[in-house]
Parts: sequence; C-alpha cells; structure tokens
Amino acid sequence: MPSISKKGIQMPESPIRKLAPYAERAVDDGKQIFHLNIGQPDIKTPRLALNAIRNHSLEVLSYSESSGFKSFRDKIASYYKTLDVDVISDDVIITTGGSEALLFVMGCIGDINDEIIIPEPFYANYKSFAIQSNIHIITITSTINDDFSLPDIKEFERCITSKTKAILICNPGNPTGHLYSREEINQLAQLAKKYDLFLIADEVYRDFVYDDSRHYSVLELNDMNEHTIVIDSVSKRYSMCGARIGWLISRNKTLLATATKFAQARLSPPTLAQIAAEAAFDTSIADTKETVAKYKKRRDTLIQGLEQIDGVIVSKPKGAFYCIAELPVDNTEDFTRWLLEHFSVNNQTVMLAPAAGFYANEKLGKKQVRIAYVLNRRDLLQSIHILRLGLQAYNKKK
Amino acid sequence: MPSISKKGIQMPESPIRKLAPYAERAVDDGKQIFHLNIGQPDIKTPRLALNAIRNHSLEVLSYSESSGFKSFRDKIASYYKTLDVDVISDDVIITTGGSEALLFVMGCIGDINDEIIIPEPFYANYKSFAIQSNIHIITITSTINDDFSLPDIKEFERCITSKTKAILICNPGNPTGHLYSREEINQLAQLAKKYDLFLIADEVYRDFVYDDSRHYSVLELNDMNEHTIVIDSVSKRYSMCGARIGWLISRNKTLLATATKFAQARLSPPTLAQIAAEAAFDTSIADTKETVAKYKKRRDTLIQGLEQIDGVIVSKPKGAFYCIAELPVDNTEDFTRWLLEHFSVNNQTVMLAPAAGFYANEKLGKKQVRIAYVLNRRDLLQSIHILRLGLQAYNKKK
Repeated sequence: MPSISKKGIQMPESPIRKLAPYAERAVDDGKQIFHLNIGQPDIKTPRLALNAIRNHSLEVLSYSESSGFKSFRDKIASYYKTLDVDVISDDVIITTGGSEALLFVMGCIGDINDEIIIPEPFYANYKSFAIQSNIHIITITSTINDDFSLPDIKEFERCITSKTKAILICNPGNPTGHLYSREEINQLAQLAKKYDLFLIADEVYRDFVYDDSRHYSVLELNDMNEHTIVIDSVSKRYSMCGARIGWLISRNKTLLATATKFAQARLSPPTLAQIAAEAAFDTSIADTKETVAKYKKRRDTLIQGLEQIDGVIVSKPKGAFYCIAELPVDNTEDFTRWLLEHFSVNNQTVMLAPAAGFYANEKLGKKQVRIAYVLNRRDLLQSIHILRLGLQAYNKKK
Repeated sequence: MPSISKKGIQMPESPIRKLAPYAERAVDDGKQIFHLNIGQPDIKTPRLALNAIRNHSLEVLSYSESSGFKSFRDKIASYYKTLDVDVISDDVIITTGGSEALLFVMGCIGDINDEIIIPEPFYANYKSFAIQSNIHIITITSTINDDFSLPDIKEFERCITSKTKAILICNPGNPTGHLYSREEINQLAQLAKKYDLFLIADEVYRDFVYDDSRHYSVLELNDMNEHTIVIDSVSKRYSMCGARIGWLISRNKTLLATATKFAQARLSPPTLAQIAAEAAFDTSIADTKETVAKYKKRRDTLIQGLEQIDGVIVSKPKGAFYCIAELPVDNTEDFTRWLLEHFSVNNQTVMLAPAAGFYANEKLGKKQVRIAYVLNRRDLLQSIHILRLGLQAYNKKK
C-alpha cells in the first residue's frame, strides 16, 4: 500500500470533533445533546445577507478576482474606517474563511522548520495549519489563575531564535476569552519591532467584547505597518460560519503581493458567499449591539452557574464567546466521553470540548474544558444543571 | 522589515493572470478583449442550481460536516453509479474547489522534498500547490507532434526514486486537451502498483469528451483501490467556477481518514455553494449533452481556424476545452503583451495564455499558447481573425 506522509500522521484530530462518534451514538440512543463544544452560534444570519443571495441575478457563477470582489473589499475597508482604523481595499485579500487567511500567511512568512510563537492555550487548528505549512509552533503558557493574560514578555523574548518569524495572538481569545489590553499589545509590538518579526492577530471575535472594554487592534499600532497582519472573518460576527468568507489585512506590500500568489493558485474565494457577506456589512450597528448584548447575558449566566459548582474554576471572559473552565476531574476527555455514553438527566446531556487539544504541551489542560456559550439562556441553565449533576455522579462512581 | 519565505518568493505568478495589468490598461484604452486565456465558460449555470439558492430557507448559515453535506456526497456517489463507477458517499470528501482537494492530497502523501511525477505541459497551479506543500514536481515531457499522448512509460519508470509518492495526470488534460486511452491509464496503473505509488487523476473535465471517445476513469481500474485518487469539481461541468466546490474520491481508508483531518482543520466547505452544487446534479443528461455538443462545435471552429493560419501548429483536443497551439513567434509572452498593448482590429484584440507557465522545464513552451474555447462561435471566429492579423503584423514589425 502506498504510504501516507508523516505530516498526515501528525495532523491532529480536531479536539472539537474527535468525540463526534460518541455524540452520534448518544443521539441514536435518543439523547438530546446541548453542544457547548463548538462555536456554532444559534444567532440568525442577517436577513440582508440571505436576501442578497435570494435576490441575486447572476446567470453564470464565475470566478471573482483572486483577492475577492473589489466592491466587497471596499465595504470591508469602510467598516474599519467606522472603527477609526485606516484600511484601504488594496490592503485586503478575501479568503475562504479565516482558516485560509492564516494558511496563506504561514506560507508567506514561514519556510521549513521556521517558528511562530503563540501564547497557549490557543485555537487548536493553528496546530494543523502549522503542520500543513511545515513550520513549528512555540508556545508560552498563560494560566487560568492569571485570567489568561499575556505572560511576561521576557518569556517571549527568550524563545526568539533565528527561525522565529512571527508572534500570533487571537484577540479576543478563542478558547480563553481573554481580551488583550493596549499595554499587552504594545509590549508584543515592541518585541516584534526589535526582532523584525510579523505580529499576527486573529481578530475574528473583535465585535464580541463585554463590560465596556475596548478592543485594541494591531492595525492601530503606530509605525508597525510592515509588521502587522490581521486575520478576520464574517463567520462569528454575522453568524455566517458556513459562508467560509474571511480575509487578511496587511499594509506590507511584499506580504500582500506574496499572499496574492497563493490566492491566484486557488483561483478565487466563493462567489455566492462573498455576495452574502458584502450585504451583511449593511447590518445596522443597533443589530450588532443587540447580538453582543445577548452574548453578554449568556456569558453572565454561564459564569455565574459555573462558579456555583463545587470544585470548578473559571476565568471570566472579556470577549469572544468561549471560556476555559477547570473541572474537578483528572481527565476531561474521559469525562466528556462518559457524559455522552453513560450520563443523562431526563434524557439530556452536554458535550464539552476537552481543553488538552488547545495546548501544545501535552501535560497541560487535561483538567480543563472549553465551553462555548452559543446557546440560549434556558438551554445554558439546563446545561449547567446537567454538568453539575454529571460531575457529582462521575466523581461518586470512582 | 520582517522577511518573506523563500517558498513565498518561489510561488509562481499565475500564467493566466500574470498579464492582467496589460489587459486592464487595454480595456481602459477602450479596447474589447476576447479572453481565450482563461477557462471561464460563458455557459449559463443550471437554473436548478441557482434556484436552489434563491429558494433556500436557511436561517443560520452554519458549518456543514467537514467532509461536506451527506446528502451531497450521496448525490455525487449516485452520479458515478450512472457512469458504472462504484463510489459510495464515504469515499467522497467535499472540498473548496478541486484546488483544495489536490492540496489535501499533496499534504496527505508528501513529506518535505517528496516527489510527484507529472507529464508536462500541466495545469500551472499544480506547481503552486507543490511549493505550498514543500514537495517537488518531476516532469516527463509530452509533445505537440505526438498530440500530447503519454510519453514512453519507461521514461516514468526511470524517474522513480525513494522520494516518489505519486503520478498525477489531468484527464482530459488542461492545457493539452489530451484524453488518455484505456491503454495509457493501464500502463500508469501497472507502474503505480509496481512501485507502490498513488495514481492521482484530476478528472474535472471528464464530461467534456468529443468524437464518441470514452473517458476512462482511474476509478474503473481493477485491484487499484489503495492507489487511485480522483479530483473532481462542479466548476466546469456545470459552469459553476465561482462556487468553489470540488471533491476528492478514494477507496483507501487511511488516505480518507488523513484527508478528513485536513478537512476538519479548515472546518467546512462553503455551505451555500454545496446547496447549489447538489441541485446542479439534477440537470438532465440531455442538457449536459447539449453543452458538450456546443463545446465540440467551438472546438471544431477553433481548430479549423487555427489550422488555416500560416505557421501555426495545433493538436486537436479530444476533451476538455483547451488546446495548445504553437505560433510562428519566438516568445508568446512577448507576443501576448504586444497584442494587448499595441494591436487591435476595430478596437478589438485577443488575450492568450503563454504556455511556458504550463511547463516545469524553463526552456519549453515559449512558442506555444494555451487557448480556451469558452466563447461563442462568432466571438471565436473573430478572435481567430484577430490572431491571424496580429501574427502578420507582429512578424512584419521585426
């Protein structure tokens, strides 16, 4: 039999989807599952976006420009202007989801065995993209006790080698919910400048910021135009995960020209979804605020509920719609499987994302789970109830 | 300034889009351009596909399964059954265009510096995908005088090393229009079997076959289930290039499990486009036959026209909708640029794809162009007329 690549063998299974077969069996057994494991919002996609597709008059579904429709890139530039961030359409390359944007960026900046520094825990798929790109992720651990804030910048500096090409953050953070302060961003910027590194910020959750906090984009940094790269997407902002429309932003012309070659190779991003995404940007600010207010309530419900469960430690997220919780169990993967296979309350159970998959260090995160608060308040309350009873039953059986 | 990767520098500019700035300027100068350079069909996308989108009732545009909607994979399996090719939905992974399918495959089978053998000239973007995947393309040259048929199989055998992982063909061929015979496919299969290689066939043009020839898929090979991988797409079949929906097919379970990990990392293929593509498969066979008949007429028009131009050599394509033509000029890139910048007939000119970009060997293809016959008959006739006068004028000026 022909051989599979080592790279293919190393590719991790998604920590979010790994336990899917157990979930399927639970459903077959008649259980209802509350999915706290995946960041698939239940919020309706803006009617403007869906109507743009329903009413379109295209007769030939042809390629768009490789970097995406100009009108859409203009719209994105205007959106940043409303945030007082200066972006022009030529700084934007539309991609097939934020995923492809990051793959392009890794390809543009990383040669074989080059390194990117990322605070852990981090979005699990970064690992897969790095393996695909033949580069290494070097992690600096942030901790739940410190609310996952930026570790001492000296730790970053100690990790820098001749192979280091970039620092990558997710802001606000998936899976941590951490919102980087202006001070934290500035520290990273100074380091990137000092060592001539790219500073990549995955800002796909930028709109989901609570408690009057302000999101601080790396695009707002002064004198860092050659260094900063932003990854963004409509997936979460407009509840359009299935559109697969993201983009990268940079003011570094060489980087943009290089990324354009990657974009040309795959011809174009999806046309229909671009039409929908462009229309979504006409959503009123009031509607966006309403969505964010909804998530804030959900967060409060979840965190309050979790804090009342014995032995659970949780860091209150300031942004995005995830939190990391430490549970009073030794191995959350085992516990999650058990919840699906052997536990239910009135035939309902919950599915969590074991957090070990969000760490590079194999010893870390085994007691933690990532919880996405993408369910309505009633379902969240019921999920917390099930989780509490589940923890009691699981720990009693031992 | 932070440095760009060597990989990024090596990535070729698309030979199809490289001259786009000259085309833009020509349009700004008021010229009308007949685009023979890009395989963007003018054929209307099936109404069934577009209506499926217009009438959909989705409220949340959520992720699909990473391998694509089950109903869509079922539909694809049924399609192959109508061709007497045994495919089940579990053999299929939906991808973002055939491009992503091939990127997944290269990642699954190739480690750093591994090799894939490809007959040249070949679809230019294979080069970019190989660079992205850190693997090498080894080419065996096929020639216009031999109608781009399979070079002596011994030449392939001589190139096989411990690094060789696969042989890749495009059937029918872009850019050659060559349709591989059963005999040619069998020779490749025997070699793949003997050396335990994957045999990858890009069959996205499988429906475009003329003169009562029959397309022979690698999926029809006996006893090759562990070896064969097919890349396919709706882009050309249903004139849905902008959908960005393709798929890979394999019966090798390890390969499929590995490709699924790549699919999970990027979450899901585009949802809206999957809905349109699934509906497109309900297009009647009569409609598909009508489209193919249209292309056959275009091919005949083009080839007849080209054969009547002094000094032009052309290989009559048996499939796809491209041909390679050798022109009586030294450098077709220079000629193409000249046609855009300095030539027109009644303010009209043509844009060709210089063929050098379809060769790995830098010395080859400089006198050749790829011509896509995706225009209506009248425009094709006018394009040939312009090309003939252009060649005369270009050669006279020297």
